Amino acid sequence: MRYITAQKENRTFIGITDEQMNLAFDLSLADKAKHQTPQLPETMIECITLGEDFLDLSTSLQQWIKDETDSDKYTYPLNQIKLLAPIPRPTKNIFCIGKNYKDHVLEMGSSADLPTDPIVFTKPPTAVIGQKDIILNHKQVTDELDYEGELAVVIGKKGTNISPEQALDYVFGYTIINDITARDLQKKHKQFFIGKSLDSSCPMGPVIVHKKEIDSPNNLNIQTKVNGEVRQNAKTDLFIFDVETIISILSKGLTLEPGDIIATGTPAGVGKGFNPPRLLQPGDEIEIEVEKIGVLKNTVEG
Amino acid sequence: MRYITAQKENRTFIGITDEQMNLAFDLSLADKAKHQTPQLPETMIECITLGEDFLDLSTSLQQWIKDETDSDKYTYPLNQIKLLAPIPRPTKNIFCIGKNYKDHVLEMGSSADLPTDPIVFTKPPTAVIGQKDIILNHKQVTDELDYEGELAVVIGKKGTNISPEQALDYVFGYTIINDITARDLQKKHKQFFIGKSLDSSCPMGPVIVHKKEIDSPNNLNIQTKVNGEVRQNAKTDLFIFDVETIISILSKGLTLEPGDIIATGTPAGVGKGFNPPRLLQPGDEIEIEVEKIGVLKNTVEG
Repeated sequence: MRYITAQKENRTFIGITDEQMNLAFDLSLADKAKHQTPQLPETMIECITLGEDFLDLSTSLQQWIKDETDSDKYTYPLNQIKLLAPIPRPTKNIFCIGKNYKDHVLEMGSSADLPTDPIVFTKPPTAVIGQKDIILNHKQVTDELDYEGELAVVIGKKGTNISPEQALDYVFGYTIINDITARDLQKKHKQFFIGKSLDSSCPMGPVIVHKKEIDSPNNLNIQTKVNGEVRQNAKTDLFIFDVETIISILSKGLTLEPGDIIATGTPAGVGKGFNPPRLLQPGDEIEIEVEKIGVLKNTVEG
Repeated sequence: MRYITAQKENRTFIGITDEQMNLAFDLSLADKAKHQTPQLPETMIECITLGEDFLDLSTSLQQWIKDETDSDKYTYPLNQIKLLAPIPRPTKNIFCIGKNYKDHVLEMGSSADLPTDPIVFTKPPTAVIGQKDIILNHKQVTDELDYEGELAVVIGKKGTNISPEQALDYVFGYTIINDITARDLQKKHKQFFIGKSLDSSCPMGPVIVHKKEIDSPNNLNIQTKVNGEVRQNAKTDLFIFDVETIISILSKGLTLEPGDIIATGTPAGVGKGFNPPRLLQPGDEIEIEVEKIGVLKNTVEG
């Protein structure tokens, strides 16, 4: 299943898309038509909280749409809807892992910076935007806006002190995050939060792919293009801390909850890593492709 | 007004207390009795979002209770209710300012660490606990649990790029936070987040005092006791960055929202600052008193 949160004529709905992302199936509308008492919650986080029932319900609603004579009523060409971030308003900050690819650590510093324990910072819910939304250039506060393509994990089940062996049981699925960073603010304020948290600095999406469709999150191609030019091109097998380790260490004494989002860090090739730096400019188009998930596209405010 | 979120017989309500904290007035119950259609929202964040209307409604409900012949029905001795954190479940992480008192910076390092720009990190909503709740000792993950008494600001109005001159217009009121920190994790994971975010590491309360009752947040006594012994004793006029500056800088390109909480940093006297360190032990009782707000009391798991 490839889950979306989207809008059609200002109505927000939970849906799924086909792999080519040509069609969207409106599960929320189908649910209301099929069931006298709607069974599908209104928000993605509430849906995810249902656990396996959400998957079963999605499957039965998709089948119901296909079987309907007026299935067109619940099926839209993707270009006729507005995709939101799959979780448009997380209920806490997004967890982010810093310095999780060796080559990225080296481009930003030296081998002395290689972490022995995961580095974690956060981005607030106010930073989240969706597919094709504009990334504000924030000219009045930063001269160094940068991109960071990342695989993101969506937690499916509440848990604390999760072992690496059990970690993937706690995952609902995967999405893409562009960890937009104001490099000057990141440096100036020491702790990363301010440089990572400007409004619109967390593009997310376009879909959450359920974990059943991804054999291992630690073996996916990830590529970032700016204006069509490849800047980041790596595989998640280069993680310093793999997804299982991240979940295990993060959950030590800290309860993870359904709908929590963990951005797993960015590979080499960020703008600041070039000499001279190739930071984002007004109008730049950024595409982040993660294998089996899709392409997250956003443009910087012109 | 001194606002509380509390429970009586498992029903959660919004209330106010008198200054001596002997009595609680149950605004939620009074609202339901007075108005056919309840006007008071269920959560403190929703109440705060009402702006001035919340203050007016509180005043009229308090008067209504006083005028009722059966006013006892809406008035409880404090010891008959369970205080929750005034905002039991923030909708994003708590913003925290690091190194905001010179003497604390020096006890933890040297003058080279004095910040020229605010240092900001966060604590997740899962860390929040209320008055008298137990602070878990997390023995399996840390040997260095420490206290940090702090004044916290509660935002009342949505805003971005707020000037220092306008900053206090965006404040709803003030509370107290104990920024419980696992020093070993804080050091090991470089970015502060993990060391600051264990479950129960954010005691908050006991009340939110409306800003009208506090002339300046930058001139309040703050004192932390452990087992009755004074450990921190300072005044917020020692802030490196005052409340207006914090709000102004934090809101540059980052939208603040009603119910957002900003912990303003801790003065000298934390456990790690002593030689040898005096870190928290099982059973320790911590009391943080901030002038005009009250005393936040919690005990470490035995």
